[in-house]
Amino acid sequence: MSENHPAVPSGGHPLDWLDIREKERVAAGLRRRLRPRPADEPGVLDLAGNDYLGLARDPRVLAAASAAVRTWGAGSTGSRLVTGSTELHADLEAELAAHVEAEAALVFSSGYVANLGAVTALVGRGDLVVSDAINHASIVDACRLSRARVAITPHCDVDAIAEVLANRSEERALVVVDAVFSVDGDLAPLADLAAVVRQHGAVLLVDEAHGLGVVGAGGRGAVHAAGLAGADHVLQTVTLSKAMGSQGGAVVGPRRVIDHLVDTARTFIFDTGLAPVSVAAALESLRILRERPSLADEVRMRARQLADGARALGLNATEPSGAVASVLIGAPEAAFQASVRCAEAGVRVGCFRPPSVPDGVSRLRLAARADLTDADVSRALDVLAEAIQGI
Amino acid sequence: MSENHPAVPSGGHPLDWLDIREKERVAAGLRRRLRPRPADEPGVLDLAGNDYLGLARDPRVLAAASAAVRTWGAGSTGSRLVTGSTELHADLEAELAAHVEAEAALVFSSGYVANLGAVTALVGRGDLVVSDAINHASIVDACRLSRARVAITPHCDVDAIAEVLANRSEERALVVVDAVFSVDGDLAPLADLAAVVRQHGAVLLVDEAHGLGVVGAGGRGAVHAAGLAGADHVLQTVTLSKAMGSQGGAVVGPRRVIDHLVDTARTFIFDTGLAPVSVAAALESLRILRERPSLADEVRMRARQLADGARALGLNATEPSGAVASVLIGAPEAAFQASVRCAEAGVRVGCFRPPSVPDGVSRLRLAARADLTDADVSRALDVLAEAIQGI
Ligand SMILES: Cc1ncc(COP(=O)(O)O)c(C=O)c1O
Ligand SMILES: Cc1ncc(COP(=O)(O)O)c(C=O)c1O
Repeated sequence: MSENHPAVPSGGHPLDWLDIREKERVAAGLRRRLRPRPADEPGVLDLAGNDYLGLARDPRVLAAASAAVRTWGAGSTGSRLVTGSTELHADLEAELAAHVEAEAALVFSSGYVANLGAVTALVGRGDLVVSDAINHASIVDACRLSRARVAITPHCDVDAIAEVLANRSEERALVVVDAVFSVDGDLAPLADLAAVVRQHGAVLLVDEAHGLGVVGAGGRGAVHAAGLAGADHVLQTVTLSKAMGSQGGAVVGPRRVIDHLVDTARTFIFDTGLAPVSVAAALESLRILRERPSLADEVRMRARQLADGARALGLNATEPSGAVASVLIGAPEAAFQASVRCAEAGVRVGCFRPPSVPDGVSRLRLAARADLTDADVSRALDVLAEAIQGI
Repeated sequence: MSENHPAVPSGGHPLDWLDIREKERVAAGLRRRLRPRPADEPGVLDLAGNDYLGLARDPRVLAAASAAVRTWGAGSTGSRLVTGSTELHADLEAELAAHVEAEAALVFSSGYVANLGAVTALVGRGDLVVSDAINHASIVDACRLSRARVAITPHCDVDAIAEVLANRSEERALVVVDAVFSVDGDLAPLADLAAVVRQHGAVLLVDEAHGLGVVGAGGRGAVHAAGLAGADHVLQTVTLSKAMGSQGGAVVGPRRVIDHLVDTARTFIFDTGLAPVSVAAALESLRILRERPSLADEVRMRARQLADGARALGLNATEPSGAVASVLIGAPEAAFQASVRCAEAGVRVGCFRPPSVPDGVSRLRLAARADLTDADVSRALDVLAEAIQGI
């Protein structure tokens, strides 16, 4: 009997079980529809995307991307170890490492596969990986794929992690956490965690998907903000698809880890290199951020304004440490309904429902951007106030 | 004791084992170096990349990509179910499905995660997945990640697959194969396979990474060439990073499978949507292919010329069924040496060494392109003849 999809009466078509599953999702309000968006949506205020610094459409970023298309073509044409490494990739790797003050960096085609590659190259069967209970799906998949023993610890519970590390029989252990958790927007206790990890002879991997460009001085990320820049037992994964306004991911950390990934990380070796145009866009965003380090402060300030405003409406909003204000609603249908009403009023917000969050804690996700205005924030809060009427 | 990385004497730094592993790889001739390439390499003939139709730098593709940057910005800004689906994604999905004559398609950020998403959404714990012994790494990872029972069958052995399917205790079973195997360039026996899979109430997933744009009439792929277009128990994964000259991947198949993936495929739901610029480039490539279906014949013809020429030099080259001529060398060092000599003479070829292939069957990989000239082919063969002297 299958765990994910219990058996259906045999004899029918081998895909008939999909129809049964679909009916169940429809009944549970969990059927998703893709809503392809047009290029221009006049009057729409987007608080759902992850373009935290507002750089995805920055003129300099667009110019760099177009130039890269002309210079390099549309694709990288091969895996990174064959034809897929351009000088642009090397430049981005050097500047990313410099930005977070680590030794080296390695670009992957997405943040998702950066996590898969990093975890599976560092732990395998016979090792231990310790993962926070609400880590991102890509980390969960990475842990599974590694075949290490996976210990899941309660959210942000450093003592629980210390206990698992202290009681392990495995020599090698990796602890993996999101820097900023995507659902609640809270920050992992990285300084304490790094100390515990070091004390127990383990390695710490921090996913800075929502940290890079947003958290800490100049958007150097949560690891840097915790005073851990360059720590020789800490590595980071980042994504280029959020604050960098582009696509792709990277692992950043000690040189020997990066060298090891080049030789062994399967999602690096066996995957086509990131398209030069996406590399160029991320690189230009990074340069803009380094010229205007206050961008990181601006997005965090806007996120706090959104959360404060939501609380003033009587809503349960967590204190944002990054770009995201998370507003608890409860039932998946109610959260979905509120997000639809916001969209109808021209404000696009995110909605977290199962399987992204457990049942009963569905929520709205308001992602700030550095380029929001005071007027944008008041408009968003006015629309939110209307949308939650009677929900 | 760890399988991938045996324990090192404890008490040292938790990453010291990386240095030991590195020394072992250096000794075995398996240490890789990234060689970032410049944008222009005058006089270099590239037979290493996967730009099979020569479209990565096609003027129409570049124009479409630049226009997409201006219209849509550098990134998709979010996951496909939030802000990451643009009208461009929908257009590409419709035209990809039409091209291979399937009901529907779904774009992922890479071919790698398309495989992970498709397999894990279709089989789970308690199910069976049957995988060819030399399937691509992304399929191997997909099988592992699914937690289904994984049965590995000898390369292209339909009888062995039939036996595993017949003797299974699981109700649900998925058979996964590469359409064109990337190492040898041989074709899976898809018609027989599909019949056996149907007979045993299973589902067939064919990875057309090297089939789309190359195999069959108009580059409709190996599934289409085998008369299986629209078969209701067959689905395909494709990559946009090879013949389409861009980046990204897709799953193509029955509508109910695609709908199921939208709701459940983790690498779809929890990954940022493919950048619009990469979508636009792939879409333009596909349109060019549909206007000039002979492109597929041209690349196959060039691959056969390379293989015939290599055999005329006394080399062991497989008969290409796609874009790739594979030339067996043997020892990893010898294959690497030959590829270095070719590169020094201005012809870039691929080199497959462990872990991409088993020990002792290292080889050169000559990837043809539709835009190669007769002169290119003779030059490549002349250089190859020199390069293998004394190896
Ligand atoms: C915490 C976290 N890690 C990793 C990822 C994956 O990054 P990408 O979308 O670039 O694959 C995401 C978001 O998508 C994320 O939120
Ligand atoms: C057979 C096969 N499947 C899947 C992939 C992965 O595709 P992508 O590079 O677009 O992730 C590749 C090549 O990289 C491949 O050769």
